[in-house]
Amino acid sequence: MELLEDRIRQDGVVKDDGVLKVDSFLNHQLDIELLDACGEEFKRLFGDALITKILTIEASGIGIACGVARCFGVPVVFAKKAQSINLDGDAYVTRIQSYTHGRIFDVIVSKKYIGPEDHILIIDDFLANGCALDGLIDICQHAGASIEGIGVAIEKGFQPGGRSLRERGFRLESLAIIEGMDPETGAVEFRSRIKPNQLRSKHDHT
Amino acid sequence: MELLEDRIRQDGVVKDDGVLKVDSFLNHQLDIELLDACGEEFKRLFGDALITKILTIEASGIGIACGVARCFGVPVVFAKKAQSINLDGDAYVTRIQSYTHGRIFDVIVSKKYIGPEDHILIIDDFLANGCALDGLIDICQHAGASIEGIGVAIEKGFQPGGRSLRERGFRLESLAIIEGMDPETGAVEFRSRIKPNQLRSKHDHT
Repeated sequence: MELLEDRIRQDGVVKDDGVLKVDSFLNHQLDIELLDACGEEFKRLFGDALITKILTIEASGIGIACGVARCFGVPVVFAKKAQSINLDGDAYVTRIQSYTHGRIFDVIVSKKYIGPEDHILIIDDFLANGCALDGLIDICQHAGASIEGIGVAIEKGFQPGGRSLRERGFRLESLAIIEGMDPETGAVEFRSRIKPNQLRSKHDHT
Repeated sequence: MELLEDRIRQDGVVKDDGVLKVDSFLNHQLDIELLDACGEEFKRLFGDALITKILTIEASGIGIACGVARCFGVPVVFAKKAQSINLDGDAYVTRIQSYTHGRIFDVIVSKKYIGPEDHILIIDDFLANGCALDGLIDICQHAGASIEGIGVAIEKGFQPGGRSLRERGFRLESLAIIEGMDPETGAVEFRSRIKPNQLRSKHDHT
């Protein structure tokens, strides 16, 4: 998605430790217009699928999930990262490791809000090692819900999460896939996207 | 706001411990249509104010804040509840007590995303003791930002947070104010709202 790639080039910050900071528009300050555009792109990509719910994980997935849910006309359910006394005991629980936060935590979804009748589109802001998405997949599978697809705003293509999910047969769409980052220059390299008209014009000239 | 009060009556669950659970539409599963309607109502209530940013706190404030931000055409900034290695050190930090979670935690906003030039509308899903809002106010004041108003979806009118904020002179608007709840019957009593046309008809008849 060109709009998102351009924004990452413009406002993303590549840190020495291999972290790409996009907190000026995606996960601390939220550019609502951009999130809505991402929602429309996911609707285009998964528009043929029957979707009954968007599943994401707190906190930074919520904004983009809301943008997607609006386009599909369905609710968002966000998984919670720690047991709250406000959650009933009757919940699906899984355990995930966060490399960002350097710890392991429980992730919880109430059994009331996901079940065998649901067709789920999982949405998250980032995909690197895929631990958070693995947790959400695990919850869907425990609930007996169908996973229709997984939509990610930014995939780090040089980390194993995306490849692993595709090999497992999941329909994964990432709006921007990063192939490499240079902390010295701040440059970000994206996986090239073959557009239908480029494909046609290539055939026309060979 | 009638739509929200009706929804609380219909789907809210009053627990024995005085907790009102609205996780089927407001803070675990999110009804996007309702959040958008809340956004429009806040735009109506604060439409005369110059707003440059919506400030909220993760996680359950984010959905409603996105609905509000869309109506104002401004970004959301959400305060984070714990230090993340992805956040630069240059942040405003305050400490708040959560009665819901029974603990005290730090709340952080990067100095990059709030400053003296900002006119802030603070948005949250719930107001009871007001600890979370106090934390967000504290951050705005440290940043030198102007607080134009505070918008809350559900205020527990029988707890002291709302009264205290109004006494301190803040422009606080709550879409539904709960005066009492009965765990036995599940009944929820709302503070009555005087509508302009009711006021006029009252004058007409006296």
